[in-house]
Amino acid sequence: MSAPRATTPGPGLGPGPGSGEPVPVHSRALDLDLGSSTQTSHRLLAYSDALLSIIATVMILPVAHTKIHPDQKLGESVQQLLLTKIAVYLMTFLIVTVAWAAHVRLFQVIELIDDVLALLNLACMMIITFLPYTFSLMASFPEVPFGIFLFSVCAVVIGLIQAVIVVYGFYHPHLLNQQIQVSENQNFYKRHILKIILRGPILCFLAAIFSFFFIPLSYILLGLVIVFPHLSRFITWCKTKILGQRNEEEEHHSLETFSFYLSEPLSKERVEAFSDGVYAIVATLLILDICEDNVPDPREVREKFHGSLLEALSEYGPNYLAYFGSFVTIGLLWFVHHSLFLYVTKATRLMGLLNILSLAFIGGLPLAYQLTSEFAEKSHNEIEAIQVSCVITFFASMFQFAIWTTALLHERETLHPFARYGGKEHAFMFAKLALYPCVSLGAFFLTCLLSEFSTEIFHLMQIVIPFAFLALRIFVRISLTLIKSVMSFSRRKVVLLEEEEACLSPTDTLS
Amino acid sequence: MSAPRATTPGPGLGPGPGSGEPVPVHSRALDLDLGSSTQTSHRLLAYSDALLSIIATVMILPVAHTKIHPDQKLGESVQQLLLTKIAVYLMTFLIVTVAWAAHVRLFQVIELIDDVLALLNLACMMIITFLPYTFSLMASFPEVPFGIFLFSVCAVVIGLIQAVIVVYGFYHPHLLNQQIQVSENQNFYKRHILKIILRGPILCFLAAIFSFFFIPLSYILLGLVIVFPHLSRFITWCKTKILGQRNEEEEHHSLETFSFYLSEPLSKERVEAFSDGVYAIVATLLILDICEDNVPDPREVREKFHGSLLEALSEYGPNYLAYFGSFVTIGLLWFVHHSLFLYVTKATRLMGLLNILSLAFIGGLPLAYQLTSEFAEKSHNEIEAIQVSCVITFFASMFQFAIWTTALLHERETLHPFARYGGKEHAFMFAKLALYPCVSLGAFFLTCLLSEFSTEIFHLMQIVIPFAFLALRIFVRISLTLIKSVMSFSRRKVVLLEEEEACLSPTDTLS
Repeated sequence: MSAPRATTPGPGLGPGPGSGEPVPVHSRALDLDLGSSTQTSHRLLAYSDALLSIIATVMILPVAHTKIHPDQKLGESVQQLLLTKIAVYLMTFLIVTVAWAAHVRLFQVIELIDDVLALLNLACMMIITFLPYTFSLMASFPEVPFGIFLFSVCAVVIGLIQAVIVVYGFYHPHLLNQQIQVSENQNFYKRHILKIILRGPILCFLAAIFSFFFIPLSYILLGLVIVFPHLSRFITWCKTKILGQRNEEEEHHSLETFSFYLSEPLSKERVEAFSDGVYAIVATLLILDICEDNVPDPREVREKFHGSLLEALSEYGPNYLAYFGSFVTIGLLWFVHHSLFLYVTKATRLMGLLNILSLAFIGGLPLAYQLTSEFAEKSHNEIEAIQVSCVITFFASMFQFAIWTTALLHERETLHPFARYGGKEHAFMFAKLALYPCVSLGAFFLTCLLSEFSTEIFHLMQIVIPFAFLALRIFVRISLTLIKSVMSFSRRKVVLLEEEEACLSPTDTLS
Repeated sequence: MSAPRATTPGPGLGPGPGSGEPVPVHSRALDLDLGSSTQTSHRLLAYSDALLSIIATVMILPVAHTKIHPDQKLGESVQQLLLTKIAVYLMTFLIVTVAWAAHVRLFQVIELIDDVLALLNLACMMIITFLPYTFSLMASFPEVPFGIFLFSVCAVVIGLIQAVIVVYGFYHPHLLNQQIQVSENQNFYKRHILKIILRGPILCFLAAIFSFFFIPLSYILLGLVIVFPHLSRFITWCKTKILGQRNEEEEHHSLETFSFYLSEPLSKERVEAFSDGVYAIVATLLILDICEDNVPDPREVREKFHGSLLEALSEYGPNYLAYFGSFVTIGLLWFVHHSLFLYVTKATRLMGLLNILSLAFIGGLPLAYQLTSEFAEKSHNEIEAIQVSCVITFFASMFQFAIWTTALLHERETLHPFARYGGKEHAFMFAKLALYPCVSLGAFFLTCLLSEFSTEIFHLMQIVIPFAFLALRIFVRISLTLIKSVMSFSRRKVVLLEEEEACLSPTDTLS
């Protein structure tokens, strides 16, 4: 959940006496000393990222905690789940990410804060954390207008608070982004950022009104809030494709006058911070379940197991295995994400969207844990549980892979030179990203074929993967050498080889 | 949960094409390009901070979720809680903070990471997240050696993994802190850091052995793990006080040769990141309770409230009030912490300890929420519930205040010049920090006197405080002006006034 920004941590201090770490004194940070109440915003943003990522993810718990009767077929109960709780989870996740994106844009414009802004932001966070509850109401009472009305009111209040923040920021221009501060048409910027921020709340306001007359329309309006930014982007993209290059140039021109802060992608640091929050909360939700469900009752131990704690605990064996397996999965998916974003220099909108979809599936992993630990080696639901886990893992890792392929499409803008197509790091990154999709897909089909051993296959997969990651670098190196030597031996495509050599050289000579 | 470090976010890149933010290229980050697999550690550390802070805090949930029968007197049940679950929570919190402190020290020595270190760190995190479970076992079966044995084994494994990380780091010296890298006696550093890291695990190893013979001794050894760093510090401090200044100079000298990385306080950034994690998870645990407990059952609404959702929801009125009240409390305590650490330039050991104690009480706030929402306006437990909430809030804010007073003792080293004794910012900071202790203490005594209106008093307090924070700056300014004018009017202590003027001038002229 870190957000290393170009500003200094404290109020623009150099290294304190006795501190050995060199703290770069950024030019903006010095402005602090002008108004003693002005502060850098980095910690406020990091805290907001943490709150938002936890709120987005935590709604998986009611899904995971839904008690399914062991005799019931999992298929039916999953359907029942899908209809209400999973819908609440996904809606919450997506709406919170929309709110998060608006928050990122807002604080790309306002770079410094003071106490009033900090308190306003906290008020905004308070309303956002209340959103999951309104969703729960909507899911439980889809035909009653009150749930959707309450949600819309919250969204409108959030929009209004953010608008107040914008107006306050432009009233105290020293808080603004420097590029906007020196620009002459501040009013234009103000209108534009207000338009972006109030777009959602206005749709929600309409939804609140319609909720009393015609509820389906309200739901459509709410859905529009989520897809609107991507939809408008897609329409612009289609337009430029149809009308040709000329328009694109025009758009490019208008972009430049707009400054990058309003139309460029979200800052990579905050994407990382939000992702870290989701991974961290998912990893730790698991131990909560373990602690609440798998501590045996002292009386039961005395009566059923004749006082032997070890015997009682051995009952929970599969749960521990499922816990460690899930933690390893989440940890390694974080590791892949971390490796990927080390080489990403800029996250485009599409990459951001794919990242959020990946995170939505990551958030589903506690459900996978609950399924594998409850049904493993028990009943006829075993295979389904393991297959659901495989599917969740597959999609979470596949969307990560999609981020990579999207980045490759515009590799000059989005990727570090090392990781671009043709280099050794490229091959290594490819292997890292491809590991989980391949393994989960393989496990899925293996469980179809060898349904007898599905649990064993699944646990074997979870245990083997960390070692696969450790050996990956060696493996990639060997296979690259093999390919090279085969090619040089056959000496058929000399020209092509030379090209590849040229591509490989920057890393080879350095490492 | 942010950790803004002096290193660049990506692998040492300048600003990407089209990105307007100036990213300072740090000299260390350029080293990355030498070994293509080497990375900056900031995101790994931020993720670790997030995991550790959540793990430390999340064990309050079993405490808060303990069902207390409404007819039962709260006094008795609180005692029962105290004996087991609160003990588990506090032990987990303190042990996890010890593990966190060791982790901070470790990665002050190792500054860059590669894939192997990242995976080793994840393995370490996995074992740490398992610790709360071993505590639950210990609390449920205090007389069975298995719980304490399991805990000790985990602690030993964590220590071993960290030792492997140290050895790996010193085997690849380019990963180390630059100061150690250029130093000639690397072996000395290696031994010293190994000693710090293995101190706890060795005590735990002894505890594991003794757990089969004499359990109380094991518990004493585990307690020693928590207090050992502070105890040794305290003993050294006493020694220097008794033996006089001469020894202090000697110690100072040895400190210098040691380099600050091994004996200096924890990095302020990671203290902030860990604190943010605790505040964020506590704030969001609340909404989880709201969503799980306060969504009415559709059938109940139909039968009991004749289909009126609003009527059913009005039943939960006090819960909403308690939720918003708790969120406001946590948000504002975070705000005070944030304001305080803006002016702290270095967190000494004692300040770190006080911060952790404050956080431990912050972690208790979900319990306060549960108490106020369950018992408010219900039964004879009302006053006790509100008083417990006041006490928790009081201690959480009082320890924050203690951080401030401790910082003032060594203000030249620990505080920003603005916030030092005598300035306007000093008075403002003092007012900010004193607000919560005063109000919660006042509410506590008011509930004793006016026990009839205790709920009203408590909610009034929670609603008034945010406005108090907004008005604080004005209030402080007015009172400072008043004091000044009274003093200049009486013209009795002209010399003293001039002194104060001199103290006030740096902020006055600037703001």
